[in-house]
Amino acid sequence: MSEAHIRRRREVVLELKRRDLDCLLVTHPANWFYLTGFTGEAGVLVVSKDGSTLITDGRFTAQAKEEAPGIHVELQKGTVVVSAGEWLKRRRMRRVGFDPGQWTVAQWKAWRKASGSVCRGIEAPGIVERLRTRKDAQELAVMRKAAILAGEVLEGVLHLVRPGIRESEIAGEIEYQMKKRGASGPSFETIVASGKRAALPHGRPTAKRLRKNELVVLDLGAILGNYCSDITRTVHVGRASRRIRTLYGAVQKAQEAAVAAVKAGVTCGDVDAAARDVLKKEGLDAYFVHSTGHGLGLEVHEEPRVARGQAIRLEPGNVITIEPGVYVEGVGGIRIEDDVAVRFHGSEILTRVRRDLIEL
Amino acid sequence: MSEAHIRRRREVVLELKRRDLDCLLVTHPANWFYLTGFTGEAGVLVVSKDGSTLITDGRFTAQAKEEAPGIHVELQKGTVVVSAGEWLKRRRMRRVGFDPGQWTVAQWKAWRKASGSVCRGIEAPGIVERLRTRKDAQELAVMRKAAILAGEVLEGVLHLVRPGIRESEIAGEIEYQMKKRGASGPSFETIVASGKRAALPHGRPTAKRLRKNELVVLDLGAILGNYCSDITRTVHVGRASRRIRTLYGAVQKAQEAAVAAVKAGVTCGDVDAAARDVLKKEGLDAYFVHSTGHGLGLEVHEEPRVARGQAIRLEPGNVITIEPGVYVEGVGGIRIEDDVAVRFHGSEILTRVRRDLIEL
Repeated sequence: MSEAHIRRRREVVLELKRRDLDCLLVTHPANWFYLTGFTGEAGVLVVSKDGSTLITDGRFTAQAKEEAPGIHVELQKGTVVVSAGEWLKRRRMRRVGFDPGQWTVAQWKAWRKASGSVCRGIEAPGIVERLRTRKDAQELAVMRKAAILAGEVLEGVLHLVRPGIRESEIAGEIEYQMKKRGASGPSFETIVASGKRAALPHGRPTAKRLRKNELVVLDLGAILGNYCSDITRTVHVGRASRRIRTLYGAVQKAQEAAVAAVKAGVTCGDVDAAARDVLKKEGLDAYFVHSTGHGLGLEVHEEPRVARGQAIRLEPGNVITIEPGVYVEGVGGIRIEDDVAVRFHGSEILTRVRRDLIEL
Repeated sequence: MSEAHIRRRREVVLELKRRDLDCLLVTHPANWFYLTGFTGEAGVLVVSKDGSTLITDGRFTAQAKEEAPGIHVELQKGTVVVSAGEWLKRRRMRRVGFDPGQWTVAQWKAWRKASGSVCRGIEAPGIVERLRTRKDAQELAVMRKAAILAGEVLEGVLHLVRPGIRESEIAGEIEYQMKKRGASGPSFETIVASGKRAALPHGRPTAKRLRKNELVVLDLGAILGNYCSDITRTVHVGRASRRIRTLYGAVQKAQEAAVAAVKAGVTCGDVDAAARDVLKKEGLDAYFVHSTGHGLGLEVHEEPRVARGQAIRLEPGNVITIEPGVYVEGVGGIRIEDDVAVRFHGSEILTRVRRDLIEL
């Protein structure tokens, strides 16, 4: 991966030149991993045209040298923020780009004090995040595997979905199966929400046992080779009523409409509208209480947001989730989610699991 | 738990009066869970003497009403930060406490714009964190179970530690066993680091296979009833050399000295020094590259820090880890970690696994 890292850092340096910045402070772990391969959880990476320096603490220096060849590793003294400030002051970096969404108010104040009057912090949000949205062929290959893995795990636990089993048991089995298949772990806490609890879009698995005639939302993702997948299917325990079938059919139609809308040049808002319009026609838009999807990659939620009114246009290499849902208190919830990659021509659905209602 | 939540919010209100604040903005999930029971991941909780309001998005409103009785739940419009600003402005809250360590620079700017000239943000860090350090009997009972569970899981996988098995297989088994025993998940990514990799204090498990005559650091924790545990043992594959035994003995002595130092009234710096002094006498302090421990509770790293020079004094109800270690590049690492609760008289070691060198 080292070649990719060098290429990515070069793109950052080009952006620094465009903005007349001396360096960029990278304070978000997924961003420094993307630029260097360093998997540690603490530090500050300084990228400049004269090279990159990672300032980190004693837990991570040996690891950084091993994982990030070509990066100068510096042991921090005091907090990492103060160390970074002093380091930049010594090197007389004047225009220092930073992301105001990745620094706390407290860190910012400490950094300003340490870096003194020489350095000036310039807001430069999203430089690395924007690069990260355009996945290259190697990244797409990994993400395809991560998505297929998540789908296989989901299909592999369907035989457990029957009255009497606890939500938490299914969740445990899902995460165990992921690891058995080579995932380093789940990309978020697995959601298994049944019956009335399925009306909570983000309900954690509990000790509740499944009952007959309940909807069960299974929302899971795996991290494979550091990249995330994210898939949701909603199944029914026993034969579904006509009302459930109608609701399910509407969500499926909305999801398929949004998936069909995905291609380069289309705005994220248009993709969101494709799902929302279908649910509106069915009189269900009030029950669709979240956005249609989000970017996916090294993090399970990243740019671009696929939400109402988002003017950003899809580009080849973007990977997004498409996951409309309806949630009716007292009845339950239905959500269907796939991971979709934007290609030069059209799109590719990375998750490969049937979408129609499964009755178990 | 609702009674505990009411008591805790009352303590916050008392602190608000002391500081002449109209309300406190609680923006950290562990903090709002501690005060309300709400387990959602997004929102802002406003605590004032006239009651508490949770502003959150459509994914979490139903869940909040279910989990947090007695809290007014408000659906956000736009971002949560802007919603909170507008809500406070409408209620003419003037002196608004916030934690500069829990707001990003970007959120802070957006909040100030939305709340207008009526509201003034006053830095009030750590109010809830400080309450959280003093665990009550109910919390200690849960944490004891979480610690025992982690220890049982650790002992339960020792039979797998043999040449040929992959680090990642042991880690997968550890996390599976946790869930089987009722944990909702690991409290951090399980560390299984063998051989030279054991010299990385925070090495992630890889596909590397264990070999004979290697040290293996097993560092794991479980979340049980929302509380975290954290335990480390270092084992040796095969019979250890004299050098390894000497190193191990020094770490064990350092760890036991620090555990023995834990009691109410002692500073965290003194506990750290108890471990560090032992390693210094053995000429190993240069290899002890991190602090002795950290607070443990709803989060795996919380207050107080058990580090060099920390003047804060231990109080009954504090739960901390004691985890000195030495890391020698090319040889490997040795770390021993227990969870210790400060009691009115002395302390209680929550983790219950033998500490002497295990050769497998």
